[in-house]
Amino acid sequence: MTQWLERQASVRDRRGLVRLPLPRAADEQFIDLASNDYLGLAADPRLAEAAGAASALWGAGATSSRLVAGTTRLHLDLEQELAALAGMETALVFSSGYLANIGVITALGGPGTLIVADEHCHASMIDGFRLSRSRTESFTHNSVEEAGRLLAARPEPRALIAVESVYSVLGDEAPLAGLLALAEQHDAMLVVDEAHSLGVTGAGNFQGRGSVAGTALAGHPNVIVTATLSKALGSQGGAVLGSPLLREHLINRARSFIFDTGLAPASAAAALAGVRILRDEPWRAGSVRSNAAALAAGLAPCLEVRGTSVDQTAGAVQSIAMASAESALAATGAARTAGVRIGCFRPPSVPDGISRLRLTARATLTPTEIKDSCAILSGILEELP
Amino acid sequence: MTQWLERQASVRDRRGLVRLPLPRAADEQFIDLASNDYLGLAADPRLAEAAGAASALWGAGATSSRLVAGTTRLHLDLEQELAALAGMETALVFSSGYLANIGVITALGGPGTLIVADEHCHASMIDGFRLSRSRTESFTHNSVEEAGRLLAARPEPRALIAVESVYSVLGDEAPLAGLLALAEQHDAMLVVDEAHSLGVTGAGNFQGRGSVAGTALAGHPNVIVTATLSKALGSQGGAVLGSPLLREHLINRARSFIFDTGLAPASAAAALAGVRILRDEPWRAGSVRSNAAALAAGLAPCLEVRGTSVDQTAGAVQSIAMASAESALAATGAARTAGVRIGCFRPPSVPDGISRLRLTARATLTPTEIKDSCAILSGILEELP
Ligand SMILES: Cc1ncc(COP(=O)(O)O)c(C=O)c1O
Ligand SMILES: Cc1ncc(COP(=O)(O)O)c(C=O)c1O
Repeated sequence: MTQWLERQASVRDRRGLVRLPLPRAADEQFIDLASNDYLGLAADPRLAEAAGAASALWGAGATSSRLVAGTTRLHLDLEQELAALAGMETALVFSSGYLANIGVITALGGPGTLIVADEHCHASMIDGFRLSRSRTESFTHNSVEEAGRLLAARPEPRALIAVESVYSVLGDEAPLAGLLALAEQHDAMLVVDEAHSLGVTGAGNFQGRGSVAGTALAGHPNVIVTATLSKALGSQGGAVLGSPLLREHLINRARSFIFDTGLAPASAAAALAGVRILRDEPWRAGSVRSNAAALAAGLAPCLEVRGTSVDQTAGAVQSIAMASAESALAATGAARTAGVRIGCFRPPSVPDGISRLRLTARATLTPTEIKDSCAILSGILEELP
Repeated sequence: MTQWLERQASVRDRRGLVRLPLPRAADEQFIDLASNDYLGLAADPRLAEAAGAASALWGAGATSSRLVAGTTRLHLDLEQELAALAGMETALVFSSGYLANIGVITALGGPGTLIVADEHCHASMIDGFRLSRSRTESFTHNSVEEAGRLLAARPEPRALIAVESVYSVLGDEAPLAGLLALAEQHDAMLVVDEAHSLGVTGAGNFQGRGSVAGTALAGHPNVIVTATLSKALGSQGGAVLGSPLLREHLINRARSFIFDTGLAPASAAAALAGVRILRDEPWRAGSVRSNAAALAAGLAPCLEVRGTSVDQTAGAVQSIAMASAESALAATGAARTAGVRIGCFRPPSVPDGISRLRLTARATLTPTEIKDSCAILSGILEELP
């Protein structure tokens, strides 16, 4: 085993694919275009205060699984207010978005269920597909037509369509209305992972409430939403939103709910504070989208020279394709040195095998920060393939 | 899908297998023989204070995966001090014990690796086996001999032996020394899940440091430990402990590390406070074990009448077999009414299909609480099959 590990390490090294979890210091100053803290809530003192108070009142941990002794009033309040925010009937909170995706997919999957999945689906959904023992067919990114053909040809009595509303790496949107029409036509459930849209997308009365609410699909009997509490909501945890029947099914069948310690009270309370801020200060979602548009505009000239563009403005995520893993790593390192943190995505973390930079906008970015980071990144991109 | 969900719900109902996450209130008074808060640290003010301070300093969430921007100094400090406590070279922290188990098993598994697993292994390990695409063979609970036969017959170049040091539901111990000898003989890695032993087992200089340290196996090149931060340490999260080469491999290959948001700073800080308390106040681990022995002694007369016994005293977990799911549920409800919380484990949460009560001792139980709960439980058990 040791020799095998050593061989793997040297192959990684040769290919420029070694990863390191570089720590940040508490007092570090940088422009954050890397994290998923879209609304800037992780650093909001209201969340920290809620986390501290909940630890003191309920304890630092949930002490056991949700079904043994790990459910507090706080967990149920969070579930209720999160569901109300997203326009769904109920929510069930998991200890992570990762385990929420695994939970819902395994609990609905199995030999009688076909899973039809967008090829860009997140690793946590893919792990759910594999664990579910469902036959799983992936369709070309965003091709409603191909998804339809797969559904039409199925022998299985049940089916799930699995997508993200805003894709995590490329940042583009799923064609939700078309997919729901398909789900209705083929008696399938549409599972929408709103990890990168809750708190970001949705307009008018649905400002920040996610793409499902924003496109008036919330509460539809064929729609299930999964969400994380770890991105726009600034905390940790995940949730599955849907009917009371679905919630009861998950409580009884989702292994990653039944056999996992409940979410820590501090994280539940911080997420609940985040839900309330999002509900009461919906302008934050507008800010993240306008900042994303400003970033895209600022980078447009430099990207035009590269023959590409940042053309999606669905959410906060923008991606820039690079010629190689080395080139992506060099750009990320140079940006870091210049005080701008960006994401560096290389195989196997990219759905199409193309290494890229991933930039995320934030509601709390200042015009100066946007201007400065566009100038810094443009300078770096001019020098690299 | 809805009809299928309804059918499943009515089958559950008929079989007495419906589960409900009943909430506890913040001011509720009860004797806790249900949770995994073995050392009583979840309610320790030092953990709550650390959680609150970390949220304020580092933010309520890690804001992204560990590799993007979700690693803080705090995470690295926790990894270092946890590894030192357990006598292992390094640790890597995950957002849950569930994802730590999935992470290490999938990263070491695959077609070239045989997994030989105790039949009582936890759901999170089993999910890891399934995801790893390894050939997986389970052996009769605690049968070193059968594990040896499976390893000897393997064509795969690599192998893992997967066990728990103290089993989560039955509470009995794995024969670690025999299993390690086997691992050495067959060039396999022994993966030991210390979820229910870290903070509880180990004597002398290794008081509370877990069964691997307690039996002088820590740091052995064939041993990997997984741990949760959510039980004796009173917080949330998980970890894999082993060599620097293993840690680097997991950082680069474990999907549940790479594609998951880092552990919330509040939970990391609470766990770190828990690690320090365990290191500085090792008598706590002795208390949990003597309280477990007192519980077992108090229940012995009533169990003798039932023709069974609570004969293991390895850790804090004790289990009492019941005639049926209904009977287990009735006992749990009656105990709850009388002010004692115990665990009710029914299929599919029991490794052998037998419904049972699960009692856990705690370092903070008073002699009166132990006496009262033994009297209450004995009274209930006299009335039920
Ligand atoms: C699309 C998507 N779904 C699910 C997850 C998992 O959520 P969490 O990090 O809260 O476990 C992530 C990211 O981590 C994600 O990007
Ligand atoms: C043996 C064992 N391993 C792993 C886990 C998962 O740990 P966590 O609850 O921290 O995710 C548990 C319990 O939940 C457990 O009992």
